[in-house]
Amino acid sequence: MTGRIPKPTTARLCKVYSLLDELEKYGERSISSHEIGKRIGVRSHSIRKDISYLGEVGIVGSGYAIEKLKAHIGSKLGLDLERKACVVGLGKLGNAIMQNEKLFSNNFKIVAGFDSNINKIETIVTDIPVYPAHEITEIIRRDAIELAVITVPGHAVQEIVGRLIAGGIRGIVNFSPVSISSSDDRVFVSNIDIAGEFRFLSALFTLEQK
Amino acid sequence: MTGRIPKPTTARLCKVYSLLDELEKYGERSISSHEIGKRIGVRSHSIRKDISYLGEVGIVGSGYAIEKLKAHIGSKLGLDLERKACVVGLGKLGNAIMQNEKLFSNNFKIVAGFDSNINKIETIVTDIPVYPAHEITEIIRRDAIELAVITVPGHAVQEIVGRLIAGGIRGIVNFSPVSISSSDDRVFVSNIDIAGEFRFLSALFTLEQK
Repeated sequence: MTGRIPKPTTARLCKVYSLLDELEKYGERSISSHEIGKRIGVRSHSIRKDISYLGEVGIVGSGYAIEKLKAHIGSKLGLDLERKACVVGLGKLGNAIMQNEKLFSNNFKIVAGFDSNINKIETIVTDIPVYPAHEITEIIRRDAIELAVITVPGHAVQEIVGRLIAGGIRGIVNFSPVSISSSDDRVFVSNIDIAGEFRFLSALFTLEQK
Repeated sequence: MTGRIPKPTTARLCKVYSLLDELEKYGERSISSHEIGKRIGVRSHSIRKDISYLGEVGIVGSGYAIEKLKAHIGSKLGLDLERKACVVGLGKLGNAIMQNEKLFSNNFKIVAGFDSNINKIETIVTDIPVYPAHEITEIIRRDAIELAVITVPGHAVQEIVGRLIAGGIRGIVNFSPVSISSSDDRVFVSNIDIAGEFRFLSALFTLEQK
């Protein structure tokens, strides 16, 4: 089975990849589709179908060979390449994300930080190069940065997104209070909203209580 | 239409609620299902069906009355109640989340922070009461805290989750590198993983390139 991989399949395969990455660190060698499904909360039938999009994958005994399956998914989805990333907005949250290396697997490298406040740029303590926000387009293009995290205030979001896209950014993780949708088909956006997560969880336990 | 509201409907209604909340601040009075769908990236047919789960909702001209629809969703999903929340793990990320009031709508109030490092508890500068991690269960129960954000290292996650659940927590937003699934049906978990978001975005633009 080949051809276009549907978006939900892509999302699940990314989760499978993260799981395999974790298992590999613990020295695990193989895993069944049943166990994968249990760990990521999906039926094992869906897991087998998702994996079938990758073409031939090695089976060892009753399960998949972890190293091989991880390599297959990684190469098909481009997860085995190192990607450069930046953070726009260096307030407490942006600074924490920029500096918290544990948040990022080795394949994502934060190579730049941006803020519109020049004082902040001059006084921030970090080994990562930081620049004023008006240089976003230039630096993204120069350093071939593919991914960005945005933590700027709501009113600044649209302008920042415009500059990122002008520089050639490909993916944006948006922590700002304003949800964004990309008008450019080549740019993908993921909105993360903690208040929104709290709302959803509250709704789930409210409905469950009734 | 009444009865059990499906989880995807709940998720979309929460997004509609956030949108209405934003529009209300800009003084908007009414909105069509078409416009709602466009803004949150869902077909207008789905929006109308989702809203039909709420029972009778006022229509003004060609759209929904924003204030009324927001109140309907809020009351049905329990989004109009103030909820107490806490942050476990007061490193840079946890501290940023605890102190960044803009991240939270007025209905979510951070009333406690926890960390296993006593030095950190004693030296942190914040108006929010902070406690050692071994007091989690006691404080959650005493203050009737319903929601928690976790930003602790992976190895500490399971123990922290156990203490939160023992105290009666209902929802957990997990920023730690280890994905968690609740074994308790009454507790809902949302895992947020920035590296995972980067992976998914990378996969989307990798597949789009081919």
